[in-house]
Amino acid sequence: MARIVMKFGGTSVADIDRIRNVAQRVKKEVDLGNQVSVFVSAMAGTTDKLIGWVEEISPLHDAREYDTVVSAGEQITAGLLALALQNIGIPARSWLGWQIPFRTNQVHSAARVEEIGTDAINERMNEGVVCVIAGFQGISDDNRITTLGRGGSDTSAVALAAAIGADRCDIYTDVEGVYTTDPRIVPKARKLDKITYEEMLEMASLGAKVLQTRSVAMAMNHRVRVQVLSSFTDKPGTMVVDEDEIVEKQVVSGIAYAKNEAQVTLVGVKNKPGIASDIFTLLADGNINVDMIIQNETEDGKKTDLTFTVTQTDLEKAEEMLNRADNIEFDNLITDVNVAKISVIGVGMRSHAGVAATMFKALADKGINIQVISTSEIKISVLIEAEYTELAVRALHTAYGLDGE
Amino acid sequence: MARIVMKFGGTSVADIDRIRNVAQRVKKEVDLGNQVSVFVSAMAGTTDKLIGWVEEISPLHDAREYDTVVSAGEQITAGLLALALQNIGIPARSWLGWQIPFRTNQVHSAARVEEIGTDAINERMNEGVVCVIAGFQGISDDNRITTLGRGGSDTSAVALAAAIGADRCDIYTDVEGVYTTDPRIVPKARKLDKITYEEMLEMASLGAKVLQTRSVAMAMNHRVRVQVLSSFTDKPGTMVVDEDEIVEKQVVSGIAYAKNEAQVTLVGVKNKPGIASDIFTLLADGNINVDMIIQNETEDGKKTDLTFTVTQTDLEKAEEMLNRADNIEFDNLITDVNVAKISVIGVGMRSHAGVAATMFKALADKGINIQVISTSEIKISVLIEAEYTELAVRALHTAYGLDGE
Repeated sequence: MARIVMKFGGTSVADIDRIRNVAQRVKKEVDLGNQVSVFVSAMAGTTDKLIGWVEEISPLHDAREYDTVVSAGEQITAGLLALALQNIGIPARSWLGWQIPFRTNQVHSAARVEEIGTDAINERMNEGVVCVIAGFQGISDDNRITTLGRGGSDTSAVALAAAIGADRCDIYTDVEGVYTTDPRIVPKARKLDKITYEEMLEMASLGAKVLQTRSVAMAMNHRVRVQVLSSFTDKPGTMVVDEDEIVEKQVVSGIAYAKNEAQVTLVGVKNKPGIASDIFTLLADGNINVDMIIQNETEDGKKTDLTFTVTQTDLEKAEEMLNRADNIEFDNLITDVNVAKISVIGVGMRSHAGVAATMFKALADKGINIQVISTSEIKISVLIEAEYTELAVRALHTAYGLDGE
Repeated sequence: MARIVMKFGGTSVADIDRIRNVAQRVKKEVDLGNQVSVFVSAMAGTTDKLIGWVEEISPLHDAREYDTVVSAGEQITAGLLALALQNIGIPARSWLGWQIPFRTNQVHSAARVEEIGTDAINERMNEGVVCVIAGFQGISDDNRITTLGRGGSDTSAVALAAAIGADRCDIYTDVEGVYTTDPRIVPKARKLDKITYEEMLEMASLGAKVLQTRSVAMAMNHRVRVQVLSSFTDKPGTMVVDEDEIVEKQVVSGIAYAKNEAQVTLVGVKNKPGIASDIFTLLADGNINVDMIIQNETEDGKKTDLTFTVTQTDLEKAEEMLNRADNIEFDNLITDVNVAKISVIGVGMRSHAGVAATMFKALADKGINIQVISTSEIKISVLIEAEYTELAVRALHTAYGLDGE
């Protein structure tokens, strides 16, 4: 017997037939003798419709009421899946965020889980009842429904898995697992059987949409074994696990890319202590997420050039803030939206030399110019001209020996 | 300053524009200096869609999960109306059944209100915040969402009005008030300015769909002043009040009719003590609602004929049960679905003689045969052949001087 938390996204429960299909998948786990809790999202399209209504009524809406409206979507699916399970002979009961309770802070529409009441869920699971839980929602201290914001539905499943000591957290989605890179670009991309938390975290934050960044971080912190798999096939997916579980470590496990980045260069920034802090504090206060940051020494040491990337949607706001700021002096501000970030990721690169050199050579061989380089312990990222994205990804996939059959 | 509870049905909140319109109506009450709580139904069509999904998944569904799914409809409207109010500068907050809490028994899908927590609502109303309450729902002792079943949404508004000592409970609907009879049949039907609880109760249970029977009974028990009015016009509606508030009592206030009745006659029932009890206990156990009951003495006293009415949908089941029952003996069972029940209602008839005679004469003048008569203190009902329904209603409307301009 194992304890399993399963999570199904909106496309997996998009209509009644798919909800019945999900019920069959849950039944399989129950038939294996497992104790099961299931997180469900709103039926595909429902959340968008509810958000549309909220925005139509009030563009500057109260986040508490937004949460009350939007959380109804998951509530509906939870009840329907509980019924579908009962209908095929599986004891099941729906649970809403406030019933568990799934306690969060009061940051409505972007709440974070603070504490999960596990008594009721543990009791039911021990009795053999499947707990069908409305994902994406919790309850705040003042008895109001909260929603967890972007990344919240995977995260809540992983959080519960950690809290009840589940043996596995299965995240069902519309892809069959984590791939070495985007199969739409590289047809020879392979599905990975296993990947480490650290690699998955880099992949998620680098644009691979298969798992939400926060959920991976939480799984890593609590050592929850997460499986990513498709709700439309019967194949095993990709296990996201501790590094110790992976015997043969790949030097590079995957290639990621992001096309929605914009490069900002501040030319001739006065080189004084605290200037970088001033710049990035300013942007952080504006809720602008800064990704790569590169600063080079200059010859005379009095002025420096500072380059960083933001998402393209934040670019205009970032420019405005920097131009308006009294405490930040520079000669010129140059932006470039015509860039893509390409990253190679792998825990094996810690113990292997020459990984970066392979990357740079592969790109050079295709005549691709590297504008910016940034590295971490298990990742090398470069900015290149956007139109070379697919070419670069394919070249790197081959260079690191990732191509499958 | 007065305390007002307002209640809007599904057609009044059918889309975003109508929700905005409702917000304007609430604002009017607030601008008058009143403290306001508002009950809302699900947007028209939503509840049917949700019930459709439940029934598609599981024809014999668990009422607890049904309630979880269906209650989402009112939740959505409550959040949206709170936003619409905030958007026009009125402080507002949504409340779900479990947040108030609106405690009910555990009869899911047909729960009854047992206790209403008024602390939070009172506090908010005193602060000038409009409380927007999801109608039709409550919470049971085991922390599950309940829905109140047919008649529940008007009833919950009246129950809250009673609990917080509201000066008035305004039930907004798609008609302008309570009419002397159905205006579709009698164009000269008049809207009543006032009607007594007792009359409204008879009207409601006799087929006038304007208020739900349970809500009228609750208003009467707690002496809550109820107003029925249209959300689509600015005219005052009909006040349902205590008899003392009505100075000039009409002998007859209204004419009601019901076409969905079926007449059942048991011919030659053995006339022994307890036989009527046996028959109607049997039907009650089958959840069959019996309306009129008429038993006549027979000459020899050994056998009697017993006539009663049930709704047409219950007729087949009633026949089966009676034919199967071992303890009930009769010579013959005759049914007739081709009947209509016509009723005249008025508290004034208590102190006036000749009210019944007027009715019988008016029908006789039109050549309408009366099959069955049943009376109560403030009501006279007759069964006639169904095709005479409209003719009878018009004749009685004129005979009792109810015709307007």
